[in-house]
Amino acid sequence: MQATYRALRDHGYAGLTIQKIGDEFPKSKSLLYHHYDGKDELLVDFLESMLDRLETDIPGEPSDDAYEQLTKILDHVIAPTEDAERRSFTAALIELRGQAAHNPAFRDHFTRSDRFFRDRLADIIRRGVEDGTFRTVDAESVAALLLTVINGAMLVASTTDSGGELQAVRRELHQYLEQRLLAEVR
Amino acid sequence: MQATYRALRDHGYAGLTIQKIGDEFPKSKSLLYHHYDGKDELLVDFLESMLDRLETDIPGEPSDDAYEQLTKILDHVIAPTEDAERRSFTAALIELRGQAAHNPAFRDHFTRSDRFFRDRLADIIRRGVEDGTFRTVDAESVAALLLTVINGAMLVASTTDSGGELQAVRRELHQYLEQRLLAEVR
Repeated sequence: MQATYRALRDHGYAGLTIQKIGDEFPKSKSLLYHHYDGKDELLVDFLESMLDRLETDIPGEPSDDAYEQLTKILDHVIAPTEDAERRSFTAALIELRGQAAHNPAFRDHFTRSDRFFRDRLADIIRRGVEDGTFRTVDAESVAALLLTVINGAMLVASTTDSGGELQAVRRELHQYLEQRLLAEVR
Repeated sequence: MQATYRALRDHGYAGLTIQKIGDEFPKSKSLLYHHYDGKDELLVDFLESMLDRLETDIPGEPSDDAYEQLTKILDHVIAPTEDAERRSFTAALIELRGQAAHNPAFRDHFTRSDRFFRDRLADIIRRGVEDGTFRTVDAESVAALLLTVINGAMLVASTTDSGGELQAVRRELHQYLEQRLLAEVR
């Protein structure tokens, strides 16, 4: 998985070959060829293992109230980055999403991973509604909009020169959350 | 440009060769090879001509008030589509954005095209603030958030099975616009 991460980050999807992943692989390359028929099959496994890791890695303490947890997550994922390697890797993920039109396995993966994150966001919003931190809103719809903003911000951060724009997105998103969700002004 | 559109839609970026664009090209292929050194150079020209077209093609009548114009644009671009060809083409555009990490010409193009659309959205919002349709808001920040939602929705619509989610995004976005922008409840 480490080898795939590095190869994807450095070459992107279009420039990737199983050979290039092999070049990053400390063990025998024949192991790779034995396990996988081609780069797409390996990449689907890579995406799944990344999703498994992210599932246990959502920011926020159990003691946070719903608003704190939500803003921690959003500030974590909607961030301009000066880290060129991280940007390259995110751009490669964008490229992989673009394969969904021609590859049902990628399409299926991204449908499930989006659903996973949307469901987690909806859980937090429902918790906030139940304990009175938030107004009564449709948690599914708010979560759908938030995930769309997260996906859009990831796209913009990795494929354009856009530091200032992302700061504006965060500012306006906080306005939205306060006005739409908070039961009382803090 | 028509030949490039069809080849990109059918093969995606990773599967595209200048030969495949040539196959869609009714005139002599040597014309293509004469003009372009490779597929990336041709694709940058293609993206620029698409942007030129979109610049004259923004939905809305001059007689619309700012709120009508804004909601027309958002409903037009944030839409689930059953049209597999349109989805494939949009996914190929996503793939092209993913090239931005390795290709400054793509990066430059998407930075400019995002800025163009953000500026148009900000113009509409400023008009609404000036004529009293909207509250006094920071037009740049609202436009930045709206463009992020548009980009995210395009990503989701073309790379996942997500009809229901996009309807939820639209519903919640209308809530946001009403609550944040409208000076009076309609």
